[in-house]
Amino acid sequence: TVVGAALNTRQALAALGDAVDAAPYKAAPKAPVLYIKPANTYARNGEVIALPADVDEVEVGACLGVVFARQATRVSEAEALDYVAGYRVVADLSVPHASYFRPAIKQKCRDGFCPIGQDLAPAAAVGDPGALDIEVRIDGQVAQRASTADLIRPVARLIADVTQFMTLEAGDILLAGAPHGAPRARAGQRYDISISRVGTLGNRLAAAR
Amino acid sequence: TVVGAALNTRQALAALGDAVDAAPYKAAPKAPVLYIKPANTYARNGEVIALPADVDEVEVGACLGVVFARQATRVSEAEALDYVAGYRVVADLSVPHASYFRPAIKQKCRDGFCPIGQDLAPAAAVGDPGALDIEVRIDGQVAQRASTADLIRPVARLIADVTQFMTLEAGDILLAGAPHGAPRARAGQRYDISISRVGTLGNRLAAAR
Repeated sequence: TVVGAALNTRQALAALGDAVDAAPYKAAPKAPVLYIKPANTYARNGEVIALPADVDEVEVGACLGVVFARQATRVSEAEALDYVAGYRVVADLSVPHASYFRPAIKQKCRDGFCPIGQDLAPAAAVGDPGALDIEVRIDGQVAQRASTADLIRPVARLIADVTQFMTLEAGDILLAGAPHGAPRARAGQRYDISISRVGTLGNRLAAAR
Repeated sequence: TVVGAALNTRQALAALGDAVDAAPYKAAPKAPVLYIKPANTYARNGEVIALPADVDEVEVGACLGVVFARQATRVSEAEALDYVAGYRVVADLSVPHASYFRPAIKQKCRDGFCPIGQDLAPAAAVGDPGALDIEVRIDGQVAQRASTADLIRPVARLIADVTQFMTLEAGDILLAGAPHGAPRARAGQRYDISISRVGTLGNRLAAAR
């Protein structure tokens, strides 16, 4: 299972501006806004991702993937990192979409829309996941620089919040939240994501089969 | 993977009334509103489901579960039923929630919130899935009667719509949409769902562990 947390950076929430105060919620989200990336979205490093026929470009959400070492239910923030086996780079690909209201299955759950880095960076080697540099290149050019320091809910807090209501198992991955302003890439382009001390992930996009 | 379709009965859509014309959408949904039930929600027939500590009662969504026989990508409505191995009774349990806007992970993805009937009713034996009677009993008393004839998108159409953008694999289950006005059940109560020609599913609810 791969679970992602939307709107988990200060910049993403700020960008919503007055919209968070509008109907139907009238307030910023108080709990993590989560989504699931199901099995049809999984892809590997280096794999060519064929875009669906109706999709021109995708947003490349450069995510720190937190990999669980064992079953985690109602874990406290203080002990949360003890449940982490390590980290992977994960590309959370989405069809660009303005609204964060309806479940964005059609935008986020297309085939191949969750490439997962192969190398697991062990938790002990990574240390504090709270200040990792994230860089996205599109065709070799730097398109985004960000840091896990921008997460509203840092990794330990996110684990605590999510496992309050959802048990995660060994091997499950929790996406810590893509940096705001995810760069876009089109068919024929290639993106490369690197996260310091964790690793890299790169895929080329192709036109619909 | 278990994928569900929300708002897929005429009654559910009608009950929203003017709300579907309000911000932010201003129209009824044009594509299926889908959600994922991840692995932590799966449970078996007869299993006791422990409600989370913060949950008093759940809605019992009595769903026809459409089980795939093989990989299904961009299937036409005409050939959709050829991809069906059979049907299972599935209980789509939810914490009652008014809004259908934000992804309802916290309402729909609690541990054990997707009991799945063990018996697969073969597609050939069930025949047309478009007029199956659904009955829910709470502690033995009939609490809901409905029919798959009320589905806005009947099974074949739903398969066609969903596989346009999401590949489903053998064994994956597509929930055809819970009948509107799902009855509620509390800790200590038991629900039993029966779907004609498909089978039964029953679970007892318990207080939080």
